[in-house]
Amino acid sequence: MNSLYIKNGNVFLNGGFEKTNITVSDGIITGISSEDQAPEGAAVYDATGKTVVPGFIDLHTHGAVNVDVNAATAEDLEKISHFFATQGTTSWLCSVLTDTREQTLWCIGQFREHQKMESNGADLMGIHLEGPFLAAEYKGAMPEHLLMNRPDMELLREYQEAADGAIRYITVSPEVEGVTESIGNMKELGMTVGIGHSGADYDTAMKAIENGAATATHTFNAMKLMHQHFPAIMGAVLESDIYCEAICDGRHLHPAVVRLLLKVKGIDKVVAVTDSIMATGLPDGKYKLGVNDIVVVDGDAKLAVGGSRAGSTLTTGTALKNILKFTGLPLEKALLLLTENPAKLIGVFDRKGSIEAGKYADLVILNEENDVEDTFVKGKQIQK
Amino acid sequence: MNSLYIKNGNVFLNGGFEKTNITVSDGIITGISSEDQAPEGAAVYDATGKTVVPGFIDLHTHGAVNVDVNAATAEDLEKISHFFATQGTTSWLCSVLTDTREQTLWCIGQFREHQKMESNGADLMGIHLEGPFLAAEYKGAMPEHLLMNRPDMELLREYQEAADGAIRYITVSPEVEGVTESIGNMKELGMTVGIGHSGADYDTAMKAIENGAATATHTFNAMKLMHQHFPAIMGAVLESDIYCEAICDGRHLHPAVVRLLLKVKGIDKVVAVTDSIMATGLPDGKYKLGVNDIVVVDGDAKLAVGGSRAGSTLTTGTALKNILKFTGLPLEKALLLLTENPAKLIGVFDRKGSIEAGKYADLVILNEENDVEDTFVKGKQIQK
Repeated sequence: MNSLYIKNGNVFLNGGFEKTNITVSDGIITGISSEDQAPEGAAVYDATGKTVVPGFIDLHTHGAVNVDVNAATAEDLEKISHFFATQGTTSWLCSVLTDTREQTLWCIGQFREHQKMESNGADLMGIHLEGPFLAAEYKGAMPEHLLMNRPDMELLREYQEAADGAIRYITVSPEVEGVTESIGNMKELGMTVGIGHSGADYDTAMKAIENGAATATHTFNAMKLMHQHFPAIMGAVLESDIYCEAICDGRHLHPAVVRLLLKVKGIDKVVAVTDSIMATGLPDGKYKLGVNDIVVVDGDAKLAVGGSRAGSTLTTGTALKNILKFTGLPLEKALLLLTENPAKLIGVFDRKGSIEAGKYADLVILNEENDVEDTFVKGKQIQK
Repeated sequence: MNSLYIKNGNVFLNGGFEKTNITVSDGIITGISSEDQAPEGAAVYDATGKTVVPGFIDLHTHGAVNVDVNAATAEDLEKISHFFATQGTTSWLCSVLTDTREQTLWCIGQFREHQKMESNGADLMGIHLEGPFLAAEYKGAMPEHLLMNRPDMELLREYQEAADGAIRYITVSPEVEGVTESIGNMKELGMTVGIGHSGADYDTAMKAIENGAATATHTFNAMKLMHQHFPAIMGAVLESDIYCEAICDGRHLHPAVVRLLLKVKGIDKVVAVTDSIMATGLPDGKYKLGVNDIVVVDGDAKLAVGGSRAGSTLTTGTALKNILKFTGLPLEKALLLLTENPAKLIGVFDRKGSIEAGKYADLVILNEENDVEDTFVKGKQIQK
């Protein structure tokens, strides 16, 4: 039995912080106790003066460290996983941008290869399909010629079978003909459905929500804005109780918009995502996002042609610090956006997203400045 | 002593409804008791089967029944007051559109003449100045050549002295140079400050709010919309805790936007106003709003030149029914937008805005469909 003892940390428990000790066996939290009693033979990690929080969960990211998810081999995915873990991410979905059937199936194949590997990084929990049933008008970095103007459920079933059920999340545009009627089927395939890349009118967006869409993809971005006469998808997203992805890099959303989103949706419905691209963790320069050329200047990623913003160079650790700065929220609230909320959205809160006996020992050690100092994924300390 | 006894009504008390009896002496509520005991000599109004609610307070209106506030004599103001009372309004401010100094002073003079008259209508509590320190870009129905690009505090003092302190409310654009710095002075003059007709950026709007602006004028309308990168005045209005005027005619605000506004601001911060014009209570046709020609088609008032929406033909009674329909709120919640909230905003909740002993007997009797059946202003039943 592989045993770990994290002692004397300021641990995030039940919505607050407690000075306590965590025992981990075979990657699972088996005990949390203020009585200092390390199991025999356990590796001991001294967290004195540190804060111990649940690992961060990133549901929307296209890559990092020179790897673009749409072109990533299994080994490449491992490179991302390891980098993410050093930044505080302990679980993630790889977001596959709209691509050809062949390339999408290749990505799914590489994902499955990665699942068989011994990983020294964040847990790659599954796949997020960003498309292909998206509206051309709000395509953002999607290649327009690959967008499909009707949901092809046969294709989606083929993808899901190839992935052995690992496609956990799909982003669709409600205004694409047939999408609102297909959301139930997508859910039956095991996918959480997000709406975005969309100029849907209010009624169409609400129909998608009534039919089971559970979140909004990079809320406000690539989305028709609310007008008092035409509330549009944004009005529906804000009025309803669905989750909202938020890219808290200070670029995609003005800090005031992050505060407003939290005011409207509540602390339990905002999910911080990075939407990061291959340039993340690297200097400014020229990169790719799917089929697109990207230029990163001062950390800001934009399409080389047209100049639309195209993903971010954000990490979860930085997102946490930004949220704290933008909102003035205490750590115990800000954390929820990166832990409990995403875990609940995709249905893994029974084993991830909080520090509880019986859950995976996905843990992040923060220093006094709330910088990520160390990360444990299923009880394994990530080597930098 | 003038005595009134309203018996056996379903009375809005302390946030809910109670079957009870109201005693009124000289216009003031003196007793509320479930024991049926009419004072000797009191006029008795049998409210059996009816709902008794506080009279509605309209802080933003330009007229009704063929009278435009900017051209209204004292007798004309009385015509409006009476019509309003038949619709459920028991207190109102007359909104003077940006006009010349001479015409504004004339309006103020007519207001003061009206104060001396015996009224058979709603209580005209004071004046709302909509301008003149407003941004041309968001002028709506304001005559652009009369807008002032700096606050003239001498002029405002002159107006307030002429009004004997009755200017209770002023709408300003935060981006007009000097406005944010002058809000404190406007408050010292006894005015509640609203922001609107504005394309102010977020920081400027927030500065106005920090300096004491307490509400937003016809929220969302004639106001720069929020964008995720440039939250603008709308972002500041929604994020902050200031009050928000809402024109609930189903035209100025889509029903979903009314619901969203309530979700963001809370039930205690939305103030229903009519922003009604002289065409209110009359058929479609050609009318005036200040210096503008207006065309009303199907109850929808627009500038004859340019076609911008220009005020409404809404009444408070209809606003209440719309709010109920748009939001699904129970009556005891919807009422707050027309009673307690406006009373608190302009600081008259000590004597208006709820049914309590010691307050004015400003009361509305609703039938089972929540239509206004009768109105009492300071204990006096309004004759239709």
